[in-house]
Amino acid sequence: MTNSYAALLSKVRENKPLVHHITNYVTVNDCANITLAIGASPVMADAIGEAADIAAIAQAVVLNMGTLNERTIQSMIAAGKSANDKGIPVVFDPVGAGASKLRNDTAASLIHEVKLSVIRGNISEIKFVAGVSSQTKGVDASDNDIAAAESAGLTAKALAQKLGCVAVISGAVDTISDGKKTIFAENGHPMLGNLTGTGCMCSSLIGSFCGAAPQEPLAAAAAAMLCMGIAGELAFENSEQRGNGSFRIALHDAVSRLDTAAFERLAKYHEE
Amino acid sequence: MTNSYAALLSKVRENKPLVHHITNYVTVNDCANITLAIGASPVMADAIGEAADIAAIAQAVVLNMGTLNERTIQSMIAAGKSANDKGIPVVFDPVGAGASKLRNDTAASLIHEVKLSVIRGNISEIKFVAGVSSQTKGVDASDNDIAAAESAGLTAKALAQKLGCVAVISGAVDTISDGKKTIFAENGHPMLGNLTGTGCMCSSLIGSFCGAAPQEPLAAAAAAMLCMGIAGELAFENSEQRGNGSFRIALHDAVSRLDTAAFERLAKYHEE
Amino acid sequence: MTNSYAALLSKVRENKPLVHHITNYVTVNDCANITLAIGASPVMADAIGEAADIAAIAQAVVLNMGTLNERTIQSMIAAGKSANDKGIPVVFDPVGAGASKLRNDTAASLIHEVKLSVIRGNISEIKFVAGVSSQTKGVDASDNDIAAAESAGLTAKALAQKLGCVAVISGAVDTISDGKKTIFAENGHPMLGNLTGTGCMCSSLIGSFCGAAPQEPLAAAAAAMLCMGIAGELAFENSEQRGNGSFRIALHDAVSRLDTAAFERLAKYHEE
Repeated sequence: MTNSYAALLSKVRENKPLVHHITNYVTVNDCANITLAIGASPVMADAIGEAADIAAIAQAVVLNMGTLNERTIQSMIAAGKSANDKGIPVVFDPVGAGASKLRNDTAASLIHEVKLSVIRGNISEIKFVAGVSSQTKGVDASDNDIAAAESAGLTAKALAQKLGCVAVISGAVDTISDGKKTIFAENGHPMLGNLTGTGCMCSSLIGSFCGAAPQEPLAAAAAAMLCMGIAGELAFENSEQRGNGSFRIALHDAVSRLDTAAFERLAKYHEE
Repeated sequence: MTNSYAALLSKVRENKPLVHHITNYVTVNDCANITLAIGASPVMADAIGEAADIAAIAQAVVLNMGTLNERTIQSMIAAGKSANDKGIPVVFDPVGAGASKLRNDTAASLIHEVKLSVIRGNISEIKFVAGVSSQTKGVDASDNDIAAAESAGLTAKALAQKLGCVAVISGAVDTISDGKKTIFAENGHPMLGNLTGTGCMCSSLIGSFCGAAPQEPLAAAAAAMLCMGIAGELAFENSEQRGNGSFRIALHDAVSRLDTAAFERLAKYHEE
Repeated sequence: MTNSYAALLSKVRENKPLVHHITNYVTVNDCANITLAIGASPVMADAIGEAADIAAIAQAVVLNMGTLNERTIQSMIAAGKSANDKGIPVVFDPVGAGASKLRNDTAASLIHEVKLSVIRGNISEIKFVAGVSSQTKGVDASDNDIAAAESAGLTAKALAQKLGCVAVISGAVDTISDGKKTIFAENGHPMLGNLTGTGCMCSSLIGSFCGAAPQEPLAAAAAAMLCMGIAGELAFENSEQRGNGSFRIALHDAVSRLDTAAFERLAKYHEE
């Protein structure tokens, strides 16, 4: 069924969905540029005075709590509710869930107050959100979690069922589940872990695909994760081991040049 | 009269004007680096406790409402008034004007409370600021606006006359008017639309040129737009269609290496 | 004693210290990526509701007042005190000290309320912090300060003795002193001054090395400055004068690829 994922890429480029982000200031530029590279249109707006208004004119909303604060937490909730009212898909990236009470409380608030279409994080973050205790070291996956990654499929499935959403766990193999079907996306490269923002960019891509195909969040999330994985492989080839800076540029290049033929040829995944 | 625009580039590099920005966190790094690349010196400071103080020691102030919030709106007004008191030019970039009530109200406040030297936006934003109603899709120009771009000259001229400022409309052809003379800057490349922040960077360049030539805002704004257009052309050549990431790097390279001889040779414009 | 500095680089890569930053939104992405490039792990978190919690789980804390505001000043103090309670090293980057009353007051507050391990700035900033009056032009060193750079050794030594910390002055030659021993790090390239954030990235590298070697702040700070200087030289070679954008990418490449053998071979410094 590669066809349908590649078809979604065409749909993003035809529809150019407007993707409203309330996201962290560390990787926001990468998020905006990757959204443009895939063919969608980013808008970043986090003031409480406009968060609901901007969400209402978008085709998808991405809420990323990477550098949350008291002000933007309120804006994330307002944007999420506004999107819910209009039937616009909401993607949630619980960056650092488990690392502080503020993050834990915020993740809980968003889950309770906003109907989420997709939640994407690393195994540590998703386990926390799923209510499984997990030692978190900052915003990266901890060793125990990596050891436990084989259970990613079960964790994603459980969270998806619990919240009625699509759950995505980033890792060496990405896991995408809606509680019934689970997709394992096998593309990628370890260099992706050497850059900040590759997770955030995945969430932006998920937002872009969901904006183009709001009725198919599972396929949209899988297509987004495959895109990033394929782009990581191409970036490694094209940057010739020059280092992290060149890999990053090559990653943006690869997303912007990815066409449906290459997508179909390179995508590796299996479904359960 | 290419001579005078190229001469302004030399002036920027001799004077190294300090350009105070209150700008959005999406493209702020690009704005700082492009300001350095053209030969000026950036300072970003948005706390109400220092906005007026920093504006007072700068040679130009750039106010960009891309990720405005209640706190920074007050700082933008304070910085603008402080610059006015000292006769320091103020450049206003009304990002997303028309997209939310907060943005519309903020644009109106800034126009009423601060004497602006230059306003730069896309056709949609400038039409909104000029009081012409316009459907805005996020922060990009909408199709109707693009169809109407032939009237950019009239719109820029009308806004310039209304506010006694220089009005700049970015587009395939950039329009720069002080209400009497209108300059159409013809350099550029469609790839510039595939990156976030090329508009914001234009505003930073306008600030840099205005800081070096505060008595010539029309020529300063035109020189800045020509620089970005020429750099876009050079970046496209030099990045050999590798993609968005490489084009972005090549754009910064081109601005940093642009010399007055290349500027004179490559600049394409006409005046009315 | 090059050996010991190179050994610290290995230590960073083995320990992968978590480095908590409260830093400016201009260069934060570069700070995160350079922290990853050297082998450490960045976390950025500035909400008052979690600043102390995140600091307490980090191996080092970097406080950078580049775009300070009323909210984040409180968070910087809370994070600093929390780190002090746990014996975690705190690095302070007094960006723009001397440029506004708010910055001056904030620098004074941080010095009084937090026990700092390392303070790093340009000569203008460090002189201000050391209580020597200095005309500051924005965030760059002023000409008078450059003329006075020969006294950097004395200034760094005096500040280090006054505060019982390591003082680092960035310049053509970097000066690192703990009040007894002073190290002059001679690597570097003028192109580093053409990019925003090279100072901030130095502070992130200092945080990374201090996190790996909390008992050796002098050696850690020296190793960090040597790394950036060597990377600047390599970046200039590798970017073949293509311009500022390419130099920036090559800088990230060089830090990510720097190994202990190259570090030992290329490091240039003397001690007094």
